[in-house]
Amino acid sequence: MQLTEEELLEQIGKLEGWKLEQNYMVRKYMFSEYMKGIAFVDEVAAISEAFDHHPHITIDYKSVYLRLSAREENGLGAMDLRQAHEFNEAFEKTR
Amino acid sequence: MQLTEEELLEQIGKLEGWKLEQNYMVRKYMFSEYMKGIAFVDEVAAISEAFDHHPHITIDYKSVYLRLSAREENGLGAMDLRQAHEFNEAFEKTR
Repeated sequence: MQLTEEELLEQIGKLEGWKLEQNYMVRKYMFSEYMKGIAFVDEVAAISEAFDHHPHITIDYKSVYLRLSAREENGLGAMDLRQAHEFNEAFEKTR
Repeated sequence: MQLTEEELLEQIGKLEGWKLEQNYMVRKYMFSEYMKGIAFVDEVAAISEAFDHHPHITIDYKSVYLRLSAREENGLGAMDLRQAHEFNEAFEKTR
């Protein structure tokens, strides 16, 4: 489903921690322990396989940074928002 | 153990895939499947906890990029080379 820029910004605003950077959705997650961040990355990977869409992941000690591109050519949409929401749910479980 | 610049370059030259970039040792690992790369990152994390020294990790779909800084103030040394060697061994197991 294609969203207008306005709708997209509104929806991203509802997703804790996420923001729009150029054509990507990005979020940095912070953990109290290194291995919790790694466990989170395992969850992110499983979600990404299910969505068949894989964010760019950076692990910098206890922080994990995700950068999600649009899965469709015409830009970020409802599925990307849903995937980001699942990443947030995984974070709540593993943090 | 501190190494001279010459010794360091010679030792890095013996480590498959690794190279020196500024003050870091870096290597990019490529995998045939996304989840193999993730399994490798799990191994990298376990090794990093054992060494108490954590490389910067970037996961870009089927490629995993490691950037290892010096664990000691006076520069890259024998322990960093050893850790990189263990990452390579983990790669051979999980690739």
